[in-house]
Amino acid sequence: MAIDFYFDFASPYGFIAGMQIDAIERPVGWRPFLLGAVYKTFGQSPLEHPLKRKYVIEVDAPRMARRIGLELKVPADFPAHALPPARAFYWIEQQDPARAVAFATAVYRKYWLEGSATSDAAIAADAAASVGFDRDAVLAGMQDASTKSRLIHENEDAIRKGVFGSPFFLVDGEPFWGSDRIALLAQR
Amino acid sequence: MAIDFYFDFASPYGFIAGMQIDAIERPVGWRPFLLGAVYKTFGQSPLEHPLKRKYVIEVDAPRMARRIGLELKVPADFPAHALPPARAFYWIEQQDPARAVAFATAVYRKYWLEGSATSDAAIAADAAASVGFDRDAVLAGMQDASTKSRLIHENEDAIRKGVFGSPFFLVDGEPFWGSDRIALLAQR
Repeated sequence: MAIDFYFDFASPYGFIAGMQIDAIERPVGWRPFLLGAVYKTFGQSPLEHPLKRKYVIEVDAPRMARRIGLELKVPADFPAHALPPARAFYWIEQQDPARAVAFATAVYRKYWLEGSATSDAAIAADAAASVGFDRDAVLAGMQDASTKSRLIHENEDAIRKGVFGSPFFLVDGEPFWGSDRIALLAQR
Repeated sequence: MAIDFYFDFASPYGFIAGMQIDAIERPVGWRPFLLGAVYKTFGQSPLEHPLKRKYVIEVDAPRMARRIGLELKVPADFPAHALPPARAFYWIEQQDPARAVAFATAVYRKYWLEGSATSDAAIAADAAASVGFDRDAVLAGMQDASTKSRLIHENEDAIRKGVFGSPFFLVDGEPFWGSDRIALLAQR
């Protein structure tokens, strides 16, 4: 059964899920979206109160990352949007679907292991270059009207399917929310 | 290392944690509190949007309960407060600390396996009777000024310690939020 994997590049638990999902021997459709667009629809903001944000960013996400051998570093501009990589992902996917996942993994590592800014288009372009794309072509591709409308469409599609957090998984219509549900996906 | 276990009786994941925490061979301090009091302080409401509530109540909490062999049944008045059992717990604890945990387990099963109303004092009294307390004494004890102020104090203490969800665990000052962190507690 294929897994649809919805995530925001600015989401620490999305990162933690992304670093583990390949271990599930199942086709995975990577679907970056903007949590901000979802929250705008539902009238709620991510990591809404300071205590919860502090817990997630300073305690729990680093702890869960360490459990899979990774040392978390928070993006320099956190909490900022991750519009550039989401657009770059869909532009790349149109050229070469296989390399889109390699790009997602590379850029995720830049944000959450190196602390690079998620809202900085140059970082996303660097990550695309690291998987073989021309930097300027990617930067231009992100600004294509078709790329922009594609991401808007993906956000709307995620909302229509009931996605309300990152990461979020859909397996044959069954929803799973959170990186803690990875073990269940494998058994599904 | 002792574990402080904070939970709201109206919380499905608090229930799921409560059904598992005895398996950890460590002293556990059961600390019921009212999530509503915490949320009032932080200006946020639990299971804030309908989509998230639907996911938790209809999909995820039943799924996680089934994994530990339990068939979840949602309390008839959900989402209502769980003031009576929280008060009853601290009244009972004052008489007999050991039986307070037996009471918590019994009343939690009434709410989440039998679907009894969390806001109904009669249900809490029934559960107290099932562990050997006099029904009327418990009902009167819940109304004691000292019981009421004890619960207020416990809520304030939880807030002061940074508790913002249910279940929530503190182990030597380290916070753990959610029933998904039970496995980590065992390793702590």
